[in-house]
Amino acid sequence: MSAALGRLLAEPQVSSWLNVHAPVTLSALRGRVVMIVTFQMLCPGCVAHALPQAQRVARSFAASEVAVVGLHTVFEHHAAMQEVSLRAFLHEYRIAFPVAIDQPGSGAIPCSMQAYGLRGTPSLLLIDRDGILRAHHFGEVPDLVLGAEIAGLMAQNGVRRTSEDSAMSASGREASACVRPPAD
Amino acid sequence: MSAALGRLLAEPQVSSWLNVHAPVTLSALRGRVVMIVTFQMLCPGCVAHALPQAQRVARSFAASEVAVVGLHTVFEHHAAMQEVSLRAFLHEYRIAFPVAIDQPGSGAIPCSMQAYGLRGTPSLLLIDRDGILRAHHFGEVPDLVLGAEIAGLMAQNGVRRTSEDSAMSASGREASACVRPPAD
Amino acid sequence: MSAALGRLLAEPQVSSWLNVHAPVTLSALRGRVVMIVTFQMLCPGCVAHALPQAQRVARSFAASEVAVVGLHTVFEHHAAMQEVSLRAFLHEYRIAFPVAIDQPGSGAIPCSMQAYGLRGTPSLLLIDRDGILRAHHFGEVPDLVLGAEIAGLMAQNGVRRTSEDSAMSASGREASACVRPPAD
Amino acid sequence: MSAALGRLLAEPQVSSWLNVHAPVTLSALRGRVVMIVTFQMLCPGCVAHALPQAQRVARSFAASEVAVVGLHTVFEHHAAMQEVSLRAFLHEYRIAFPVAIDQPGSGAIPCSMQAYGLRGTPSLLLIDRDGILRAHHFGEVPDLVLGAEIAGLMAQNGVRRTSEDSAMSASGREASACVRPPAD
Repeated sequence: MSAALGRLLAEPQVSSWLNVHAPVTLSALRGRVVMIVTFQMLCPGCVAHALPQAQRVARSFAASEVAVVGLHTVFEHHAAMQEVSLRAFLHEYRIAFPVAIDQPGSGAIPCSMQAYGLRGTPSLLLIDRDGILRAHHFGEVPDLVLGAEIAGLMAQNGVRRTSEDSAMSASGREASACVRPPAD
Repeated sequence: MSAALGRLLAEPQVSSWLNVHAPVTLSALRGRVVMIVTFQMLCPGCVAHALPQAQRVARSFAASEVAVVGLHTVFEHHAAMQEVSLRAFLHEYRIAFPVAIDQPGSGAIPCSMQAYGLRGTPSLLLIDRDGILRAHHFGEVPDLVLGAEIAGLMAQNGVRRTSEDSAMSASGREASACVRPPAD
Repeated sequence: MSAALGRLLAEPQVSSWLNVHAPVTLSALRGRVVMIVTFQMLCPGCVAHALPQAQRVARSFAASEVAVVGLHTVFEHHAAMQEVSLRAFLHEYRIAFPVAIDQPGSGAIPCSMQAYGLRGTPSLLLIDRDGILRAHHFGEVPDLVLGAEIAGLMAQNGVRRTSEDSAMSASGREASACVRPPAD
Repeated sequence: MSAALGRLLAEPQVSSWLNVHAPVTLSALRGRVVMIVTFQMLCPGCVAHALPQAQRVARSFAASEVAVVGLHTVFEHHAAMQEVSLRAFLHEYRIAFPVAIDQPGSGAIPCSMQAYGLRGTPSLLLIDRDGILRAHHFGEVPDLVLGAEIAGLMAQNGVRRTSEDSAMSASGREASACVRPPAD
């Protein structure tokens, strides 16, 4: 199953957060457009395109309007991309936005990646001011298109969630294969 | 004097139109966002950046929503960039959107360039659905920013012009140094 | 017919030279490696790749070792690419090496283009220190390959031409369809 | 101290080799030009420029003429760039030439990096057919220049080393701070 466009996006399931003092939640970002860039530090397309693009987004829009969040969804070469390597990677590539490490799952696919139905890396999720998933891209997205999508969402006034939305969100979250983090 | 942000943009003064059967007017484009890319065919920054970007805009947005118009504002090397050369240039670079040739002025600067207060090429003007000038850039504009600006204007509902706007437009046009084309 | 690899390259047939005070001849360049970049000023691949590459060659090698010469071989849109336009083009793109305008032929193809058997633009000819044609490329050539080819020729010691070579050169020149410029 | 231009380059001190069945030695590559690209897998300039360039070199020249060898000289973030991560990196970036892992030293700088006097990554060493160091670059090298340097070395006929060269090589090796691998 996959995160549905037009529905509240469930919170990512995260084993740790980098570049921030405290965990980030999507609910705390309500009121802003949120761009989630999902990547692997050893994925060439992520390094060459998606992450530099995310840095441009972070630089080009006011942080009070658009939040950029990274999600490190390792689904291959797990031993090669541990937190210590990711930390050095973020430092060397000067990636300063918050980055979540996707909660390892029971198989190769980590939890948020599974819950969100991501096909691979890089994937890009756009969430509106109300937390609703509005775009889901796999692979390279042109800057012109991405800029337009972000601005289209910025132009929407946030509307308070209805109880239906909340229910939807909860159900989305429970349906995921990874609700409970491993004991470690 | 220069075209003012927030005011109706006067029609360009054009000696001929290429890539179209009949002249284009901004008033006929009301209801769409309009991007005017002003260029010279021998300006390296125009060829390398502004014109490919304009082609991406034309490809990326529905023509019913966003109109791309070129304006060839030759202010140097006039003999080198005559219509016959421009036609071949547009053909070779596969530029298919309408291109206006700016009306030659009494000096080196052509009429629309003077009326719009352009500083050089490439310059880029963005007009909202009501014909109001909303952005004026000189030089290279990042795709991310341009995409956002266009989408921001797309998100606005067109509002009918008031009689004040019309008056403004007329006065803007008369104030230009180039209303009457030179005799030659 | 076409210029043969391993044979002396005939002098180009030139209607005028730009960027120099006096005509350039290949024979006067004996002792140096010569790179001839043939182009049309409105050919996108020439503007984007071949000419910037030729400028890099001119910057990267000592002028006493490697001579870069442009040859403007207009075979389409002739009216669009007259000398006045080419002059402005060279100025705007800061092309400082000598550029020859290929002698117009009886048809669309100019004389040197025909004599050299060029397939289109950009084409690139490499001549060794003795004036012998050693490489003939049509289209884009990677810098790595070009750098290697030039250095390979630089590493050869020039050998004095034999009388046989001279005869070959003369016969090559006479065989061309374009020795005499058209009357117009 | 640093490897001297014009002198035999000492063999690298290597903790393990990747992409090969058996260790590579420079002496076994005598007769070919050798390009050593020294890098760190998390060095942005290496990933964006030096390694793709090394791949182009490997593709553009016959393997019997030019050998490309990588040397992973980790001098920072050591825990982040262990062999398991490097292996995944090479796989993902499709780097197929032999890669040596520089022998860890007593401090942060690994042994070959110290012995060769490298200033950082990427660095590039060119060795002639006789094993003599002929070029040492730190940072980005244009393809045109690199292609020319390689071809210049290819054009040299290999000359048998004299006993003086051999002595030099031995002394160079002993002078290094890292002959003995650390105990760990």
